[in-house]
Amino acid sequence: MNQTPLITLTTDFGWGPFVGVMKGVILGLCPGAGLVDLAHDLPPQDVRAGAQVLAQALGVFPPDTVHLAVVDPGVGTGRRALVAQGAGCLWVGPDNGLLTPVWEADPATRAWEITRSELFRHPVSATFHGRDVFAPVAARLAGGLDPAEVGLEMDDPVLLPRAQPRREPEGIVGQIVARDHFGNLASNLPQTMVTGYLAGRPGEALLWPGEGAPLVFPLKATYGHSEPGGLLAVFDSLGRLELAENQGHLARRLGLEPGSPPGWRVLLRPRGAGRR
Amino acid sequence: MNQTPLITLTTDFGWGPFVGVMKGVILGLCPGAGLVDLAHDLPPQDVRAGAQVLAQALGVFPPDTVHLAVVDPGVGTGRRALVAQGAGCLWVGPDNGLLTPVWEADPATRAWEITRSELFRHPVSATFHGRDVFAPVAARLAGGLDPAEVGLEMDDPVLLPRAQPRREPEGIVGQIVARDHFGNLASNLPQTMVTGYLAGRPGEALLWPGEGAPLVFPLKATYGHSEPGGLLAVFDSLGRLELAENQGHLARRLGLEPGSPPGWRVLLRPRGAGRR
Amino acid sequence: MNQTPLITLTTDFGWGPFVGVMKGVILGLCPGAGLVDLAHDLPPQDVRAGAQVLAQALGVFPPDTVHLAVVDPGVGTGRRALVAQGAGCLWVGPDNGLLTPVWEADPATRAWEITRSELFRHPVSATFHGRDVFAPVAARLAGGLDPAEVGLEMDDPVLLPRAQPRREPEGIVGQIVARDHFGNLASNLPQTMVTGYLAGRPGEALLWPGEGAPLVFPLKATYGHSEPGGLLAVFDSLGRLELAENQGHLARRLGLEPGSPPGWRVLLRPRGAGRR
Repeated sequence: MNQTPLITLTTDFGWGPFVGVMKGVILGLCPGAGLVDLAHDLPPQDVRAGAQVLAQALGVFPPDTVHLAVVDPGVGTGRRALVAQGAGCLWVGPDNGLLTPVWEADPATRAWEITRSELFRHPVSATFHGRDVFAPVAARLAGGLDPAEVGLEMDDPVLLPRAQPRREPEGIVGQIVARDHFGNLASNLPQTMVTGYLAGRPGEALLWPGEGAPLVFPLKATYGHSEPGGLLAVFDSLGRLELAENQGHLARRLGLEPGSPPGWRVLLRPRGAGRR
Repeated sequence: MNQTPLITLTTDFGWGPFVGVMKGVILGLCPGAGLVDLAHDLPPQDVRAGAQVLAQALGVFPPDTVHLAVVDPGVGTGRRALVAQGAGCLWVGPDNGLLTPVWEADPATRAWEITRSELFRHPVSATFHGRDVFAPVAARLAGGLDPAEVGLEMDDPVLLPRAQPRREPEGIVGQIVARDHFGNLASNLPQTMVTGYLAGRPGEALLWPGEGAPLVFPLKATYGHSEPGGLLAVFDSLGRLELAENQGHLARRLGLEPGSPPGWRVLLRPRGAGRR
Repeated sequence: MNQTPLITLTTDFGWGPFVGVMKGVILGLCPGAGLVDLAHDLPPQDVRAGAQVLAQALGVFPPDTVHLAVVDPGVGTGRRALVAQGAGCLWVGPDNGLLTPVWEADPATRAWEITRSELFRHPVSATFHGRDVFAPVAARLAGGLDPAEVGLEMDDPVLLPRAQPRREPEGIVGQIVARDHFGNLASNLPQTMVTGYLAGRPGEALLWPGEGAPLVFPLKATYGHSEPGGLLAVFDSLGRLELAENQGHLARRLGLEPGSPPGWRVLLRPRGAGRR
């Protein structure tokens, strides 16, 4: 247990009063808790985008931090609510795939279905379980409640399908799985796999955002090693191959709308491999 | 008094440095205070929208929380500044109707006009009373200052007019009073009034957003009980009848601009009552 | 040293997980630190806009507050990283001009280049020094680390050029240097210079936002002393002459895009001085 209990919040509620209201409930039950916002402007009901945010929190926060996440299109229906214990932290949210990164990072993750209604705020509304179910449970866990006290252990959480990169004759093939505030596009190609494959050769990534010829992104050490406006590939802060436009906004350049990116195909190969 | 003093902030300042600056002033006067943002992206000078945010905070925060609210088109003019004590909390802001929900929730609310300038930050600017007047007063109240120390008690606060729902032959008639981040539209029809009226019958709400036939919103238990894209009415987390589009954005669908919604008429009646 | 260590954060990362991740790193190294966001939605890579935000924090926060600022187009290249001690606080960020307001406010500011890599989070990514370099250093400073422990003292920080207002026959001439959330445009004309020049006469400001005749802004005590929609000049909360549209959005009215404003010329003169 931390000296100062710490809770992070991730929602699609926008930066408005719903988030503040959840914090009010938390601080009433766990006075003095530290509260850290991860993201609240997720595209509404975009569970995959929420999972990408939680992936960023892995390995960064102190042990026993409680991560509260609410992207919950099924609020008020029969979908289950979960507490997961894994990767050194506790995670609270709906059972709709949002907590997938915890299981990906730590296969030994355990989970309990939240059913003990005496832990809730009453009356429980049908539309705001963030305030009435998830916030009170997160606050009590931060205050020391054993996760086994929220309900029965379960072992069949909803998990999002995970795209696996694969080796092909012309290189390593993956796909775009996330985008960030700067318009950079992250792939599912891990740095270890890429550097092992390249074995010291310079590399380049090819992206097929639509019809026609692919865009080419030379692999660089960092953004500033490309000209302003130049395309490049780097390893992002989670150790993934990322495609970027230096001092530009690649997603906007490609006409992408906000939200989860399409699963565009990415090919990583030695630089110039396809040229004659 | 709380163990850890707690202050919420509601402004139309945007999520920029003005809010951080107010927090710096607060933490200089009340070190260690807990700070919770309710909303800062209110439409500029929209006092009604600010009042709707404060209504969300009623009954949620621990006793003695200080709620600081600054939506202040009259800054620097003769408009009064207030501290109100009601609904278990303290409320600080300009006397322009922003604090109306406190009186609506607690008719025994008391108020004092802020006049003791030795409580202020000096020099007091003519354009940023959030930093120079409201933040210092809120910080001192959170630190234990008696509200009667800020100035003389007063009993004539500016209050926003309140629309009252009424019973008519065809059903209960109210109006739209708020919208949220998801584009849902809240009415002033309370759950208790609606369920009493329906007496177990299924219900539906009619909305006249413009010329022509009304839109029909069947009353459901929660969003997920409608098809994606379907119109429905639910009771929101404040116990009001709310109109929504499941997994959609009703306000955008109806062409509403951001800001306070128009006071559109809403009729709640037994389902199918108007059909032949 | 404060009782409760206090750290502010200013970035161009957006209100997303990058900021939360930095806070996680900070709270792991300095548990219980108070965290205040100044701004995170700066135009990407806009160092001048970041400097304007830091200028707002001068003189507002308690002594020894650590101000962490990351607007860092040169991340991962050879640009230096700094700790500055000045104006009663500590300041951490890249050496690209972002910390200019500290030297402007306090010429006795001292600075050290951050080089002691054992202070960093490892492995250090090439793209996210906010998480791996600046946040850990800021946290350790807030916890009591002497700034001289981060590396060698240096005396040649990158500083942004500063526009100086000047007296001319027709009045005082300055330029627009900042804009705020309400669309108001701040100039570099200080209140002391303006009031000394006017010596009690009513004043007006002229702005040349493009071709043709200038716009005229009568100097008023506060916004509410003008009609809604009326142009006016006031002294802003930093003591600068500011141009505004009462209850309007001057920047949008003039067709300005978000970001640093153009350095438009502003002339302050006695009211009506140019008329026949």
